[in-house]
Amino acid sequence: MKAYQELSREELISLHEELLKEYDAWKEKDLTLNMARGKPSSAQLDLTNDIMTVLGHDDYYSEDGTDLRNYGILDGICEAKKLMGDVMDAKPSQTIVFGNSSLKIMFDTVSQAYTFGILGSTPWCKLDKVKFLCPVPGYDRHFGITAQFGIEMIPIPMDENGPDMDLVEEYVNNDETVKGIWCVPKYSNPTGIVYSEETVKRFAALKPAAKDFRIFWDNAYALHHLYPDIDVDIPNILEECEKAGNPDMVYQFASTSKITFPGAGIAAMSASEANIEEVKYRLSWQTIGYDKINELRHVRYFKNVEGLSTHLKKHADIMRPKFQATLEMLDKELSDLKIARWTNPLGGYFISFDAMEGCAKKIVAKCKEAGVTMTEAGATFPYGVDPKDSNIRIAPTFPPLDEIVTAVSLFITCVKLVSVEKLLEE
Amino acid sequence: MKAYQELSREELISLHEELLKEYDAWKEKDLTLNMARGKPSSAQLDLTNDIMTVLGHDDYYSEDGTDLRNYGILDGICEAKKLMGDVMDAKPSQTIVFGNSSLKIMFDTVSQAYTFGILGSTPWCKLDKVKFLCPVPGYDRHFGITAQFGIEMIPIPMDENGPDMDLVEEYVNNDETVKGIWCVPKYSNPTGIVYSEETVKRFAALKPAAKDFRIFWDNAYALHHLYPDIDVDIPNILEECEKAGNPDMVYQFASTSKITFPGAGIAAMSASEANIEEVKYRLSWQTIGYDKINELRHVRYFKNVEGLSTHLKKHADIMRPKFQATLEMLDKELSDLKIARWTNPLGGYFISFDAMEGCAKKIVAKCKEAGVTMTEAGATFPYGVDPKDSNIRIAPTFPPLDEIVTAVSLFITCVKLVSVEKLLEE
Repeated sequence: MKAYQELSREELISLHEELLKEYDAWKEKDLTLNMARGKPSSAQLDLTNDIMTVLGHDDYYSEDGTDLRNYGILDGICEAKKLMGDVMDAKPSQTIVFGNSSLKIMFDTVSQAYTFGILGSTPWCKLDKVKFLCPVPGYDRHFGITAQFGIEMIPIPMDENGPDMDLVEEYVNNDETVKGIWCVPKYSNPTGIVYSEETVKRFAALKPAAKDFRIFWDNAYALHHLYPDIDVDIPNILEECEKAGNPDMVYQFASTSKITFPGAGIAAMSASEANIEEVKYRLSWQTIGYDKINELRHVRYFKNVEGLSTHLKKHADIMRPKFQATLEMLDKELSDLKIARWTNPLGGYFISFDAMEGCAKKIVAKCKEAGVTMTEAGATFPYGVDPKDSNIRIAPTFPPLDEIVTAVSLFITCVKLVSVEKLLEE
Repeated sequence: MKAYQELSREELISLHEELLKEYDAWKEKDLTLNMARGKPSSAQLDLTNDIMTVLGHDDYYSEDGTDLRNYGILDGICEAKKLMGDVMDAKPSQTIVFGNSSLKIMFDTVSQAYTFGILGSTPWCKLDKVKFLCPVPGYDRHFGITAQFGIEMIPIPMDENGPDMDLVEEYVNNDETVKGIWCVPKYSNPTGIVYSEETVKRFAALKPAAKDFRIFWDNAYALHHLYPDIDVDIPNILEECEKAGNPDMVYQFASTSKITFPGAGIAAMSASEANIEEVKYRLSWQTIGYDKINELRHVRYFKNVEGLSTHLKKHADIMRPKFQATLEMLDKELSDLKIARWTNPLGGYFISFDAMEGCAKKIVAKCKEAGVTMTEAGATFPYGVDPKDSNIRIAPTFPPLDEIVTAVSLFITCVKLVSVEKLLEE
């Protein structure tokens, strides 16, 4: 196949007619498929059904003998702090186990900084201007939180090593209104990028102008390898920050949402002891504690972090063929045409797809018109605005394989069609 | 027994010597007992152990067929909204089911009003002054929330019908800086007072100067009768507010913390559809949803609100003897002495005890010194300051009956001793 750019106008016109017919044929199929959400499939959820019954009728004591049915224990039962701490390479003393949602922890963390400040700094609500750096493309729900608080979001481009660290350093080290940065350091949402060792170390070595600057290190996919035999690891951010003299500069987050059941899992935060002490003090005004029985349920089921990793290998066995099928189709149909680029992730839940500039919204709309819902174009950028209108997040985990093949086929047709239309306009 | 006020100085001195001996004998017993926290006892918790195993390995569909293991459903599964709505006399459309803690919902509700405002009003953080009315004695954790946000708390006296409504009306209807009031309308913490029909109706008929004034109606003990055969009911606050033309004036809260397991229960909020819509919109930025499996667990176990009530009768059977023993001892030992008053609650978790003015802190300290922890004196007032230093919250639910008898005996000795000392000082 020839690259589309090399086709003559006549060739493009005839190709356009062909693609229109193809597209119309798709529309007649009356599809209703969804490739939008990073949800585990039913087959993945089935892997964990035994957790429902792992706690017997009288199994409610923690290893230190506490009756976990009653009030008490604000920061998580000791064995759950160990488990979730190990997920994040953190000590139990650096870890708090919360409820079911790491997103909620992140929202609350921003909210507390906004209202009460961080370790004695001025509450952000009292400042004229607060900014966050937002590596792009990124996770729409991160940007949603900062948007709610009126925090100005500055997009930071990413390459295969993570965010552009020259730019991050320039902002963080010189602008004291920059109070935070959203990071998904491993199998980034949606690119699948794994931050390089150098990137992590440059993060740890930042010299923030604002003493209440914090890295929001959302380690959502810490253990979520698609190819468990390929060794993917990143330095321990808590340790690196400590070594660099910035022990308090990072809040780390993780959850079991994509390990057990989304919504019925446990979520956790880790940070320096000084940060943890502040968070615990503030928590003490909010709740008497989180669901300790569910924490125990998770510990009983997995025993330790190795148990989690073993379990995630079974997830990977279900997810990998879906990623591979998607990538093979994109490769076969699009790689020669020079109208798109996409990532080949080793973990996480997404493939990030870049169409020609100005085409993403039209592609997603065409898919929608023919019955396939993709993540909204722009969602991966602050304020929902992708300045190049190019990025589309593909989520190939939830539908069964045959539906993914159908949806990706249609998607490819739409990419071709919209690209040809763009070339014809030029 | 003669009232202490009628004793001569000589009689008081000799009584004081006797009581000191009695107290010293207590100290030698090396007690470690706790009457401080409103916690259910182990025997109460045992009532619910079957909930641990009520969901089978493949029981995870809601009645509308949704797979509850996955992401989705922000406001609670339909059957849990029905169940918790019924607890609060609210329609499912007026109800959101959250995580495990109603305190956390209340904190977040104040926090959202502080940061974002209510239905278009100015966020409280942008105002110079925000005040809350605090019926006293009340729940320390309510006051803790408002204190955190720097909200000025105004104590409102209570009588057997609830808060002094003349005063409430004067403040709410004339002062637009008054933005809220904390209420526990049924079996109030700690007095056990049940708001009268007139009180509820006067609440509903308030004409707030501030259009973002809200009643925080913490219906924590809606079903928690100690004497289930005695009919205790209060008007439906949501309906009354609607009838009075104030549909949006109230947020209501409830949980199963003292029905199933504290910490592993479910909590809910109910309010007008307009309020609920706003809360849901804001929630949509915070989380993808709460623990739906735990919601289903509760629905399967109780089936409906009648199931909850039946279950609470078993709780009452365990709690009632403890309340009765405490009250009988107080009656027998103190009623003639005219040095104290206390409540005789028909439900809830507490007895409220008023010592002579200036004696509460000393009584609690004496108890502590002899090994019995009571709720800190003053805790039932805003800022921890009881202006009369008179109120003590007695929590007779957690310890076994024999320990309660011991603890209350010591408490009575301390009350007598401190009262005599006060009279001798005069």
